[in-house]
Amino acid sequence: MTDHKPDRMRFTHFTSFAPAGPPGAMWNHPKARNFDYTNLDHWIKLAQALEKAKFDGIFWADVSSVHDVYQGSYATAVREAMQFPIGDPLMLTAALAASTKELGFAFSANVIQDHPYAFARRLSTLDHLTRGRIAWNIVTSFQPSAWKNLGHDTIGDHGARYEQAEEYVTVLYKLLEGSWEEDAVVRDLDRRVFADPQKVHAINHEGQYYRVPGIHTNEPSPQRVPFLFQAGTSGDGRAFSAKNAEGMFVYAHTPEGAKKVIDDMKSRLAAEGRRPSDMQFFVHLNFIVGSTEEEAQRKSNEADAYLSSEANITFSSSTMGTDLSAMDLDTPVGDFQTNALQGQFKALAEAAPDKAWTFREVVMSMTSSRIAGTPEQIADTIEAWQAAGVNGINVGSVTGPDDTYDFLDHVVPVLQERGLMQKEYAPGTLREKLFFGSESPSGPRVNERHPAASYRTSNVLAT
Amino acid sequence: MTDHKPDRMRFTHFTSFAPAGPPGAMWNHPKARNFDYTNLDHWIKLAQALEKAKFDGIFWADVSSVHDVYQGSYATAVREAMQFPIGDPLMLTAALAASTKELGFAFSANVIQDHPYAFARRLSTLDHLTRGRIAWNIVTSFQPSAWKNLGHDTIGDHGARYEQAEEYVTVLYKLLEGSWEEDAVVRDLDRRVFADPQKVHAINHEGQYYRVPGIHTNEPSPQRVPFLFQAGTSGDGRAFSAKNAEGMFVYAHTPEGAKKVIDDMKSRLAAEGRRPSDMQFFVHLNFIVGSTEEEAQRKSNEADAYLSSEANITFSSSTMGTDLSAMDLDTPVGDFQTNALQGQFKALAEAAPDKAWTFREVVMSMTSSRIAGTPEQIADTIEAWQAAGVNGINVGSVTGPDDTYDFLDHVVPVLQERGLMQKEYAPGTLREKLFFGSESPSGPRVNERHPAASYRTSNVLAT
Repeated sequence: MTDHKPDRMRFTHFTSFAPAGPPGAMWNHPKARNFDYTNLDHWIKLAQALEKAKFDGIFWADVSSVHDVYQGSYATAVREAMQFPIGDPLMLTAALAASTKELGFAFSANVIQDHPYAFARRLSTLDHLTRGRIAWNIVTSFQPSAWKNLGHDTIGDHGARYEQAEEYVTVLYKLLEGSWEEDAVVRDLDRRVFADPQKVHAINHEGQYYRVPGIHTNEPSPQRVPFLFQAGTSGDGRAFSAKNAEGMFVYAHTPEGAKKVIDDMKSRLAAEGRRPSDMQFFVHLNFIVGSTEEEAQRKSNEADAYLSSEANITFSSSTMGTDLSAMDLDTPVGDFQTNALQGQFKALAEAAPDKAWTFREVVMSMTSSRIAGTPEQIADTIEAWQAAGVNGINVGSVTGPDDTYDFLDHVVPVLQERGLMQKEYAPGTLREKLFFGSESPSGPRVNERHPAASYRTSNVLAT
Repeated sequence: MTDHKPDRMRFTHFTSFAPAGPPGAMWNHPKARNFDYTNLDHWIKLAQALEKAKFDGIFWADVSSVHDVYQGSYATAVREAMQFPIGDPLMLTAALAASTKELGFAFSANVIQDHPYAFARRLSTLDHLTRGRIAWNIVTSFQPSAWKNLGHDTIGDHGARYEQAEEYVTVLYKLLEGSWEEDAVVRDLDRRVFADPQKVHAINHEGQYYRVPGIHTNEPSPQRVPFLFQAGTSGDGRAFSAKNAEGMFVYAHTPEGAKKVIDDMKSRLAAEGRRPSDMQFFVHLNFIVGSTEEEAQRKSNEADAYLSSEANITFSSSTMGTDLSAMDLDTPVGDFQTNALQGQFKALAEAAPDKAWTFREVVMSMTSSRIAGTPEQIADTIEAWQAAGVNGINVGSVTGPDDTYDFLDHVVPVLQERGLMQKEYAPGTLREKLFFGSESPSGPRVNERHPAASYRTSNVLAT
């Protein structure tokens, strides 16, 4: 493992295409405006502000259905707008393509929503329309309601979900990297040859979950495979990330906690034949900015009045796969096994190991953690995360875009002044931008150490 | 059946999100520019020109895979860019939402590409982002390659495909009309009630093809159910249209042929309890405009040099489900049974019943039919179609957008002068706009005679 002088930090804005997303679901805060989420102008304004501030991207966390584990009902999620209703973030990405030039678009999309053949087409289309500015956060779905509404009897078990995800991305790699050779498209008007069929290959995929015999529907887009994020926290999730991801959302509540995950991941990357710098590590933090520490703290306390413990318990019940209404929330957590976000759950407890955390405390801390301070204090905090090996911050929002705009106006100039944040975009696709200045500078496509590269015709022929 | 004074004609522009689509695939024409189809600016320019001319909409014909029936190979489609490669038109619709204000967006999407639960979410998202300007052309997929690449062993038979489509739209109707009551969303900040869970209903669908127990992921969009097009030509297809469609693409090569279909459809509509004016009939025509008839004819003859009979036979083999390379194309058609577009195939033969059509003649006529003339001659032609009961023209393109721009510049003013085409957009959603001035004026939602209306809570409770 190399220890290199840290380059700039990357910044994405974390949100959902919903009235309110975790954490907090404060759509009812006086300054919240995300309940206007169906209005495209709302998003254009936000995306253009992020681009003006040189944010690397905007990230939509996504679920395919409603959080209905709590009390066995969708009632609380509907009433409290807990990440619901929820639009399709791929559509929103497309809708923002023309209003921006440099901003990246990252979205979660789970592997049970679309057949990989259709999903590959969506990815290529979006990558063309945005000229290579998309990133996909690979998720298995932890929502039983999503599985059931999408035609499955029940949610797959954790290990099987990762097995299916592994085959899913393999199909995508074959389609996106293996089907069309680099020089297949010739657009030769005189000879009337749009593309050379000899250089377009059927993938002949036959696996346990998918059979895809044919060719990809799209000519190569700027990135081919979008920049790949993953947020797995379990052992299965980390193994999947080490193999496939180029960016990882690390759940940690302290820089020390993040460093533990990052160290583990760097070992895993090495075991996969990848370099430590082939992956960038992001942490999700929420900020409340004040001109003084007191002002920030006062704003933060005021925001607490709009927190709903029931909404947060609804979200946690869904991610944990356990109806928390059936439990005594004031009992200690112990070594409770969750359905998803196990690592997030544990990371919090690990952040204060001497404390006997109760379920209620864990849930509320997971969904309301935030850093309140002056721009300088916030920059200091970000430096501390950087020192732990973190490469980027997924900047959440407590009240909806209002505190995001505060961050852009007041914190970004300090970050740029300290060299913590870019002042101009690097050229090229999102992948080139994100790896710019790192020890793994990249072209528009995944590098040769990524498993998708093994399906390139040049590599297939060489083996 | 009522015979009412015809109101204006509607105009949509027919294209594909591909280098070239049927008919003709003339991406290599010197004035063709659709090979620039991956460039969003190309589409923004076209959409804004259509909107400036007061076109009702743009329509993307779509397929989910490659036309590979001809010679059992994808080679010709790839080489000749016959509707391939092909992007996802729903993404392109989203990408054009912010660049336009009034133009409608219609897209084909077949029922095997997406699970209806996921597709309903896409439709609602798009309808929100465009503020109610979308139309869906309901298609079963006639491509064996699409079925196979999307996880099916083989293409379903024609009758079963319509049976599945019927269940598919039923699931959509239940989600889009039945799940969220009109006043479910309250956005009450003080009481912290985003939506009233008592007014959001699980659809509990259990059918032969789909099981969807839950609630729709999206709050009601302006139209809820998008304006519904269909293009079925077989008996099954017409029955499906009579029940479900609000707009029908009629395949006919003469106004008399169109009138026969329209008369049949009006009887079928009555049998379904719908009014003749509840459906609008569009025909697909291609135009080449000249300042004189001679100039138009010369341009048309010049265009013929760029027609590829092999590309067209590739397309026809796919729609017919028969490899035409294995047949003597110079034999008479007789009563040949096709896999899809049976009616289109027959309509052509019926248009000249005394002629003993060969396969080659049918194929080439299907894919290269066009009307060359002066703007006044073209307007005369459109009037003749209107007199046969046609409500709209799906204006194709022979050379790519070049002749579309000719149509906008030179034919539209004549059509508007004659009252054949709107000079201003009607207010409201696409549905309100399209039905404006007809004998079935409409609000934003499907009318009470449409089967989707039966799933509204008010109707469910009333029965």
